[in-house]
Amino acid sequence: MTDLLLNNVRLPDGTPADVLISRGRVERVGLGLQAPAGVPQEQGGGMLLLPGLVEGHTHLDKTTWDSPWYVNQVGPALTDRIDNERAWRAASGHDAASHSRALALAFLREGTTRIRSHVDVDTEAGLRHLEGVHGTRQALAGLVEIQTVAFPQSGLLIRPGTAALLDQALAQGADVLGGLDPSAIDRDPAQSLDVLFGLAGKHGKPIDIHLHEPGDLGAFTLDLILDRTQALDMRGQVVISHAFCLGGVDARRLDGLLKRMAALDVAILTTAPPSRPVPALRACREAGVTLFGGNDGIRDTWTPYGSPDMLARAMMIGLRNDLRRDDEVQWAFDCVSVDAARACGFADYGLAPGARADLVLVAASGIAEAVAQRAPRRLVVSGGVVVARDGQLQGGLAT
Amino acid sequence: MTDLLLNNVRLPDGTPADVLISRGRVERVGLGLQAPAGVPQEQGGGMLLLPGLVEGHTHLDKTTWDSPWYVNQVGPALTDRIDNERAWRAASGHDAASHSRALALAFLREGTTRIRSHVDVDTEAGLRHLEGVHGTRQALAGLVEIQTVAFPQSGLLIRPGTAALLDQALAQGADVLGGLDPSAIDRDPAQSLDVLFGLAGKHGKPIDIHLHEPGDLGAFTLDLILDRTQALDMRGQVVISHAFCLGGVDARRLDGLLKRMAALDVAILTTAPPSRPVPALRACREAGVTLFGGNDGIRDTWTPYGSPDMLARAMMIGLRNDLRRDDEVQWAFDCVSVDAARACGFADYGLAPGARADLVLVAASGIAEAVAQRAPRRLVVSGGVVVARDGQLQGGLAT
Repeated sequence: MTDLLLNNVRLPDGTPADVLISRGRVERVGLGLQAPAGVPQEQGGGMLLLPGLVEGHTHLDKTTWDSPWYVNQVGPALTDRIDNERAWRAASGHDAASHSRALALAFLREGTTRIRSHVDVDTEAGLRHLEGVHGTRQALAGLVEIQTVAFPQSGLLIRPGTAALLDQALAQGADVLGGLDPSAIDRDPAQSLDVLFGLAGKHGKPIDIHLHEPGDLGAFTLDLILDRTQALDMRGQVVISHAFCLGGVDARRLDGLLKRMAALDVAILTTAPPSRPVPALRACREAGVTLFGGNDGIRDTWTPYGSPDMLARAMMIGLRNDLRRDDEVQWAFDCVSVDAARACGFADYGLAPGARADLVLVAASGIAEAVAQRAPRRLVVSGGVVVARDGQLQGGLAT
Repeated sequence: MTDLLLNNVRLPDGTPADVLISRGRVERVGLGLQAPAGVPQEQGGGMLLLPGLVEGHTHLDKTTWDSPWYVNQVGPALTDRIDNERAWRAASGHDAASHSRALALAFLREGTTRIRSHVDVDTEAGLRHLEGVHGTRQALAGLVEIQTVAFPQSGLLIRPGTAALLDQALAQGADVLGGLDPSAIDRDPAQSLDVLFGLAGKHGKPIDIHLHEPGDLGAFTLDLILDRTQALDMRGQVVISHAFCLGGVDARRLDGLLKRMAALDVAILTTAPPSRPVPALRACREAGVTLFGGNDGIRDTWTPYGSPDMLARAMMIGLRNDLRRDDEVQWAFDCVSVDAARACGFADYGLAPGARADLVLVAASGIAEAVAQRAPRRLVVSGGVVVARDGQLQGGLAT
């Protein structure tokens, strides 16, 4: 049943309303709505209604969610972590399909209905992880919308054969082409980016590049990315994930980069890590650059931390950017909702009539409380169907 | 009943054990223990047993916990926040006794059995807030051990009359003398610190100074504090709260300050805020300086964030310091347990025979999982009494 009447909720602007859902979409929002015959009703109890939350950057294929604890004894370098993970997955037979499904359902339980997941593609595992996540994408179709990013975690040029695998991955239905540190990892940024943009152009797909490179090195690489975005007319089709360099250059350099990104509609993904320099949300907003949020890996061989809760990630974005006023905390919420949907290209998003009926009812007075206190999710609706209630998946999902 | 046998738990080092509690203290830890006649038993189910958690720095008197949401519209400066709060408390009639009690019980529910709370003392409210928190300290005696710090939130020298109030506060049973930014707020650091150390000496009480001052200014003030700690032989009696300056000076200056602090056994309190420079846990450990953890304010007029959960604070310390290996995450746990107990002078702490039986049973495989995933508290025991179970306070506390 994808029709539903949600009675007596409070919209994010504070207005009381009922919401009528028909064939999985928001049909009407207003007061005193009546359910057509046979349409079930839910009582909102005056609670806050949010649109389904959006995870802008995670790695569903890497998680150890739903497994015994992984004891982390990994060295501190980026390459230590990459090499350890590849060896561990080969040795453990880690199954991307089952773990990604478990984690995606945990996201859904906490109100997230759209997920962009990077998925490792490399010359050892080939497309195995991607096929696993595509299995989950298929299994959860209609419940959680999963975008996949074919991600060369072990490098592109430095591991010959990877470009051909990315080509195959896009042909097999990966939604987005991923990239990784063209300077620091591939050691040949111009050539690396030429290959990457060539593949994206061939398949007509957007790009999302992990850019961990710090300070002036990262800024140099970023300029190379923007050059190609401009030359190939990929306006609105490029995301820079992490962009730590924007937290590590001087004010004039930052200003120039942000102006260029705004003009090319290049968005930035942040996890707002407490231990790294990060792009500042306030500066991005002022420059007209879309900054949106994601968790990155959740409980994997890289990190023991993380939970599939986008309000917790919004809280971290708020804390990292020292957002305290209620109106500022709203910005952090936008990062895991409307701005993430826009940057990732998730269609039909929001609470307005016509939008896909992905809704979350939370026990909070307003957005600021929902974010700052990670308010409990009372009801999660996906495509007009009640999928979770009080933190428990419903029906056949509760396995 | 303060006798109890806790069967089948796992100690932090992984050893399985039973724990026999007698007259509120740990009597024996070992395998195959038998309950004396009439002593109740609890089944640990092989779960991880932790000592009661320690909150090293909060402000019980400021919280709006248990109240409608406070809409934050406050300006960004430290003085904006101080002035706003003083005006709001005067206008709202905010009752420190009832709110501090509600928050302290929420701490207890999540396994915290010792709390150091700074409490505002100023010339407008006088000792009203302190009397409120002392009421809570009395009401919860035997359940939560509360230390109070008489804290001149509005400044010491710049608000004449404050020193006399601090004098009274210590005479009325405040456990610790607080201080605040002797340079940035009081504008006369030498005189401010002379007054402060004079009061501490008069009452024979330890000192805990909020030092928000950044970089070289904070380092200058810190040196003045250390001068007096040395001259007045207050070794082991001084805590620096926040010490943001230690995240903002060059390596040589940092090294010199840490060496001096180690020699004088001056401890540092951190909340590990994601948006500020902070003292690095690794550097403090290497220098032999005790760094311990606290939440600072929870849901008050300063900040909408915070929860009375010391595992969540340990998680933030881990994230802020990029601690990923299981053995490193343990350091973050020490900050909210043994190191906090030592720095604050909470007696009879731990899991060994003779310690006060403050225990928390958590659903986690080990310390790293407990911290990184904020593991659910299954059972909380204070002084041998079961006070919370599965997140619910028990008996007369569950109001």
